[in-house]
Amino acid sequence: MGVEDVTVRCSPLVQAPLTETQSIDLAAVFKALADPVRLRLLSLIASHAGGEACVCDIAPVVDVSQPTVSHHLKVLRTAGLLESERRASWVFYRVVPEALDALAAALHPDNALLDVVPRMETDR
Amino acid sequence: MGVEDVTVRCSPLVQAPLTETQSIDLAAVFKALADPVRLRLLSLIASHAGGEACVCDIAPVVDVSQPTVSHHLKVLRTAGLLESERRASWVFYRVVPEALDALAAALHPDNALLDVVPRMETDR
Repeated sequence: MGVEDVTVRCSPLVQAPLTETQSIDLAAVFKALADPVRLRLLSLIASHAGGEACVCDIAPVVDVSQPTVSHHLKVLRTAGLLESERRASWVFYRVVPEALDALAAALHPDNALLDVVPRMETDR
Repeated sequence: MGVEDVTVRCSPLVQAPLTETQSIDLAAVFKALADPVRLRLLSLIASHAGGEACVCDIAPVVDVSQPTVSHHLKVLRTAGLLESERRASWVFYRVVPEALDALAAALHPDNALLDVVPRMETDR
């Protein structure tokens, strides 16, 4: 699929100053989450039966057009928060738990320094 | 100080679909974090001696002007991620651990449904 992985290393924000590169990578993931519709899509997919959903499942719930939903899903996928799989005519999306774990770990003050590597995809 | 608190209730993203209101509140906090300079400022303050810092401590480290640093700190404070206290001529900032905890809890897939109430401030 022509995917190029970009390594994002998240250190907990509160243990040590982030480097410029770390802060750029982390800000890009937070930017993907900084939209109410995308947050709703993410939570709808994660809590959908089987932990996955296609655009046809979720577009009616959020009252947004399918092209707009597809655009938001692409942003979430590019940030490494969703992964997708095509089956017949539909693309199914599921949350990447490691990516959410990495963000939660970066934010949590009790965590010791750790390296978590969520996969971030370039545009494809 | 003319502070008006706004209640933000974060439910873990992955346990149940977020409501429209929850997603708007949560997106606003992620938006505050969706900037590399703000992330660096947050991590610099949190990891500074005593867990607090003033603009004079951090502006030289990030190579950004003091007014720009002050603007970013205001955004973080408005989002409820920082609190501030004036002492003599300087305002000292510290991270609000409960706010980061709430975000981490919202992201973490293992968490049961919970209500965490970080304090979000309107402009002051």
